[in-house]
Amino acid sequence: MNTIGSELRLTLFGTSHGPCVGAVLDGAPPGMIVDVASIQHEVDLRKPRAGIGTPRAEEDVVEVISGIVDGKSTGGPITLLVMNRDTDSRKYDRFKSVPRPGHADLTARSKYSDCVDLRGGGQFSGRMTVGLVAAGAIAKMLLEERGIRVAAFVRQVGKVRDREERDVTSGVLSRSNELRAATDEMAEAMRQEIISAREDGDSVGGVVECIADGLPIGIGEPFFDTVEGELAKMLFAVPGVKGIEFGAGFASAGMRGSQHNDPFVLVDGKVRTAKNDAGGILGGITNGMPVVLRVAIKPTASIARGQRSLDVKSGRQTDLKIEGRHDPCIAPRAVPVVEAAAALVLADLSMRGGTVD
Amino acid sequence: MNTIGSELRLTLFGTSHGPCVGAVLDGAPPGMIVDVASIQHEVDLRKPRAGIGTPRAEEDVVEVISGIVDGKSTGGPITLLVMNRDTDSRKYDRFKSVPRPGHADLTARSKYSDCVDLRGGGQFSGRMTVGLVAAGAIAKMLLEERGIRVAAFVRQVGKVRDREERDVTSGVLSRSNELRAATDEMAEAMRQEIISAREDGDSVGGVVECIADGLPIGIGEPFFDTVEGELAKMLFAVPGVKGIEFGAGFASAGMRGSQHNDPFVLVDGKVRTAKNDAGGILGGITNGMPVVLRVAIKPTASIARGQRSLDVKSGRQTDLKIEGRHDPCIAPRAVPVVEAAAALVLADLSMRGGTVD
Amino acid sequence: MNTIGSELRLTLFGTSHGPCVGAVLDGAPPGMIVDVASIQHEVDLRKPRAGIGTPRAEEDVVEVISGIVDGKSTGGPITLLVMNRDTDSRKYDRFKSVPRPGHADLTARSKYSDCVDLRGGGQFSGRMTVGLVAAGAIAKMLLEERGIRVAAFVRQVGKVRDREERDVTSGVLSRSNELRAATDEMAEAMRQEIISAREDGDSVGGVVECIADGLPIGIGEPFFDTVEGELAKMLFAVPGVKGIEFGAGFASAGMRGSQHNDPFVLVDGKVRTAKNDAGGILGGITNGMPVVLRVAIKPTASIARGQRSLDVKSGRQTDLKIEGRHDPCIAPRAVPVVEAAAALVLADLSMRGGTVD
Amino acid sequence: MNTIGSELRLTLFGTSHGPCVGAVLDGAPPGMIVDVASIQHEVDLRKPRAGIGTPRAEEDVVEVISGIVDGKSTGGPITLLVMNRDTDSRKYDRFKSVPRPGHADLTARSKYSDCVDLRGGGQFSGRMTVGLVAAGAIAKMLLEERGIRVAAFVRQVGKVRDREERDVTSGVLSRSNELRAATDEMAEAMRQEIISAREDGDSVGGVVECIADGLPIGIGEPFFDTVEGELAKMLFAVPGVKGIEFGAGFASAGMRGSQHNDPFVLVDGKVRTAKNDAGGILGGITNGMPVVLRVAIKPTASIARGQRSLDVKSGRQTDLKIEGRHDPCIAPRAVPVVEAAAALVLADLSMRGGTVD
Repeated sequence: MNTIGSELRLTLFGTSHGPCVGAVLDGAPPGMIVDVASIQHEVDLRKPRAGIGTPRAEEDVVEVISGIVDGKSTGGPITLLVMNRDTDSRKYDRFKSVPRPGHADLTARSKYSDCVDLRGGGQFSGRMTVGLVAAGAIAKMLLEERGIRVAAFVRQVGKVRDREERDVTSGVLSRSNELRAATDEMAEAMRQEIISAREDGDSVGGVVECIADGLPIGIGEPFFDTVEGELAKMLFAVPGVKGIEFGAGFASAGMRGSQHNDPFVLVDGKVRTAKNDAGGILGGITNGMPVVLRVAIKPTASIARGQRSLDVKSGRQTDLKIEGRHDPCIAPRAVPVVEAAAALVLADLSMRGGTVD
Repeated sequence: MNTIGSELRLTLFGTSHGPCVGAVLDGAPPGMIVDVASIQHEVDLRKPRAGIGTPRAEEDVVEVISGIVDGKSTGGPITLLVMNRDTDSRKYDRFKSVPRPGHADLTARSKYSDCVDLRGGGQFSGRMTVGLVAAGAIAKMLLEERGIRVAAFVRQVGKVRDREERDVTSGVLSRSNELRAATDEMAEAMRQEIISAREDGDSVGGVVECIADGLPIGIGEPFFDTVEGELAKMLFAVPGVKGIEFGAGFASAGMRGSQHNDPFVLVDGKVRTAKNDAGGILGGITNGMPVVLRVAIKPTASIARGQRSLDVKSGRQTDLKIEGRHDPCIAPRAVPVVEAAAALVLADLSMRGGTVD
Repeated sequence: MNTIGSELRLTLFGTSHGPCVGAVLDGAPPGMIVDVASIQHEVDLRKPRAGIGTPRAEEDVVEVISGIVDGKSTGGPITLLVMNRDTDSRKYDRFKSVPRPGHADLTARSKYSDCVDLRGGGQFSGRMTVGLVAAGAIAKMLLEERGIRVAAFVRQVGKVRDREERDVTSGVLSRSNELRAATDEMAEAMRQEIISAREDGDSVGGVVECIADGLPIGIGEPFFDTVEGELAKMLFAVPGVKGIEFGAGFASAGMRGSQHNDPFVLVDGKVRTAKNDAGGILGGITNGMPVVLRVAIKPTASIARGQRSLDVKSGRQTDLKIEGRHDPCIAPRAVPVVEAAAALVLADLSMRGGTVD
Repeated sequence: MNTIGSELRLTLFGTSHGPCVGAVLDGAPPGMIVDVASIQHEVDLRKPRAGIGTPRAEEDVVEVISGIVDGKSTGGPITLLVMNRDTDSRKYDRFKSVPRPGHADLTARSKYSDCVDLRGGGQFSGRMTVGLVAAGAIAKMLLEERGIRVAAFVRQVGKVRDREERDVTSGVLSRSNELRAATDEMAEAMRQEIISAREDGDSVGGVVECIADGLPIGIGEPFFDTVEGELAKMLFAVPGVKGIEFGAGFASAGMRGSQHNDPFVLVDGKVRTAKNDAGGILGGITNGMPVVLRVAIKPTASIARGQRSLDVKSGRQTDLKIEGRHDPCIAPRAVPVVEAAAALVLADLSMRGGTVD
């Protein structure tokens, strides 16, 4: 359903091709300085870029409906609203009978009957993440007040993988290029990979990495509400995510314990670990090291070249050509979404239970 | 915290070195035939095996306290209890001051103060999964009544990876070998990998794959309560899990859309896909294909060889040697836990919202 | 917080003196015929009436933002929005230092700091119930499809109490008078009571009764999610409610068991009770008889006559005169709110667990 | 279902005529001094007393299974277990076909099918409150550490009503008499009322009042998670409760605003109110005055004299005589349950959001 979170709770509303989309963020503490321009800036980062993104042109102006007065949070629910302007719904009718491979057309119609709203992807659209990014901007401010920074960048596009170890600064720096890569060199290589896919009428997948530093020891509520579990639940809501890993992640499977265990050391009088294969989490609780996660993002389902599908009413096999406006790679635009999602979860968890550092 | 689930809700109780551990499973429908021997059988599968497991010897007899009368569920909460017998708590005191690398000692003590109960791992112990497996056995019965089977097996141990495509039968067959591998050949290769690690005073990681088939189209509650998100949240509670992926998972990042998209086809009059890179889920909702997931499991944190740690009170670097009873690889014993966890989530989701096939 | 419900989930958004208020209703089944005019009609019933209500003049036009297309629910979240037009915020500043007796001024400022938004009552305003009534209209449609009717009326205003036994028809008929009384005679007597209070520069309390019939046996999820508990939690969100009772309610305290127990009888082949002191609920579960509840509503806190208060900053005792637009009795306007609240809870509960009749 | 609470979460387990009942209390802070004798003392107060209670003789020894080590809370879930000994299940079979008026027999069987466990009332039994009282004892310790006291007493039995204004001390003093009345005189009058009912083969209802003082301003999470709403939801789980009111409660309906509004005054430099018709809550948030609530408790449904019921299988009207062990008035034994329930809710709410005094 459309609500998530415990002490900091997010509800998304609206739909892709309705009048607006938006978010309610409930539980934010009062008296926070909330810079609306910063919210707008995060939302702008989510927009498609020339050359590598969809030409759907939305202005995406964030309106504050409640919860922020005179630049400060009131303690009441924060309502954020963004109008939809550039909607072209005509072509979506057809997908109820001929579902697009890789999309939710079939599953949505089966679950919600023929009355389902698939215009622009309906509630499954990446457009629902506009509200998530706007709310996440506030969660980031809340975390920053506590000395916690969250930033993401593109770790991989197709065959191009950034193999350097990175920290939260890499995420911040990635804002300077449209690919959201950690360096300009990586950005250029990734751009070529995307352009090559687009030229083939195709799309390509990627990996987004997100790092949070400054977290105290003690965030997370085991047994079930672990840092990993809460982040994972939120991040699988981001359209296209097919996997998530923390620290060494899947590489752990091939490691020995003596390699994987992070030895404890003292750094500036604080207990830290000498390396971070745990990804900043032990027993579901933050251990004072940066939380490091990666999400796998599948190639955009909508591609220009023809695909095999089925007319589900007649049962006849058919060829499907999807026209319209689509990103050949979602990863760069997913970066601010992953950042926002992670910030919302970490802020919520940091408002629960007690922490000591 | 220790409760999870919506319409089918699980609460774990007890602690590793207390009198007992157990589970409350709330919301199970009345009138289900519940074979207590089957519950016991699942719990037995979780026990360590000669040669590759810890010598901690627990009988693990499941007692039904409530919710099952005359072999049938009553509709009331099902309480399941397992006594702890073979506990040896003396050696755990030390870990509050010298935390074991890879364990929750440091994070637990920081979060919960010196009063934290770390005997046998306390609430972070793999022993808490006894109740989870017992409750999962009931979830599996509930799913079986609806024609849904859930089974897991070990996909990888260290450098040994099973590269064949597998289905739910592989999980069922894996019960015939102690490694929980899909075939006896794989089992033998994995056993060698584990023995080799143990001989080095070390441990090794692995990957468990879990498959559910027979699911109708339409299970899952987007935007936030997706099939992936709910499974991930539950599975990150299983000690040692560092990553989760669905279908093609992280491999999706290197794929093109034309490769990754699963074409729709008609099979026996039902809409299915020609392959299953989506892992049975589109838009967070089951699509009628098997749900396929894999979890990465880190190498056991407790190893026989000496490790670097820190006395957190004095701040002095120290060498730590962990004695006691530990599995050199958790993956085989994690198989029934992953199966149970997945079954609990799928049963809960299948009791929510509407489904059509 | 601003979200409630399990399978049918309501989130309220906006604030009294912001641009709009609204509601997100998540989980409504797809394919329901949703008459937007009926939603509007319910919201109109909440408006103040000439002579006995506040002159704040809001048009309260309900806009459907998502979840209803071509007159049918899509299965996605239903977003409903109502603009605020007639806001006059100037006079509220003062209440942060001189809190109004009977209002949330003091508690809100203490909880949320000086940054709290008290304009028009902020998130504590009765205006937040506009979204609740709009969403409740949809819950009522959902219940009506299942043969369940919910209707409320004013049982008491000040000293005037309607002592007749009533059924759901009384609630429906009460729509014909502005007092929302069961009969025109009662309406006239109650009107006199309200006018008399207003003439004294005062206000008066009341009791609203709500009845739901057509409910099958078996709705409610004990031990904690009982029909009474869920209804009570929702109804105490309605501003001004100070008590709730079911069936014989507080009168039960003075009764004998032989009086109070409702004997079982057969009516048209169905098991019913000969009377209904249980208020349609046994063991937290509906018993096939109408659910009958009453809520006590305190006299409007804002009164024209001067009151004693305190300047909380200087600590000096002060006299407070509240100007502005206020209902001398909230009960009649609370009727559609209570109806909506009850309908939302009953619809949610009827979507959970299994029911048999 | 059997779990309630947000940051302090309670799960009840077991069943009336199974091997044991118990509770899991999750989220209690670490390092609390927990006196197990005090838990036992609260549970003992729940036991029936000679002359006015059921002769069911349970020892009710509380065993701590987890979460308390060396007299201190560990921060992990606290598991408490009480064995059932004195169970006599034979007579309950019959109630599936001939439901007892005022009991959950019919509704439970309809909801949960013939497989429902009605022995001793099953999950609807007052016996489930043993775990609630034990967990509540810990919640009371947690509140006491913050200077908050919660105590209840019997306000009314049948026609005998205590009309004095009372405070939290009345609740504490009521422990000295078996009736749990505020004074010995009231106790004697109430005892006569109960004995008179019992002599008639009948039972009688009552009212329990509960007062919490020492609460800071600012507890409660409006719009939906109000202090009243959360307390009400919990208290309607207590078997026999038919109504709840706060402060002036239902009497508010007959009051004028000028009477009901509590003027703000300064007491020892703190903002308080001159009287407490609000019951310590404004806008769903505590206002620094004692929280005062009353619950109406219906007369015990099981009475010795014959009653009319129905054989639901044959549809034939039948006379029912209930033998066995029953309290002629539940109110005195409900006192520690109401206290525990209120303490659990207030402790949970005080762990959520921020408070200022």
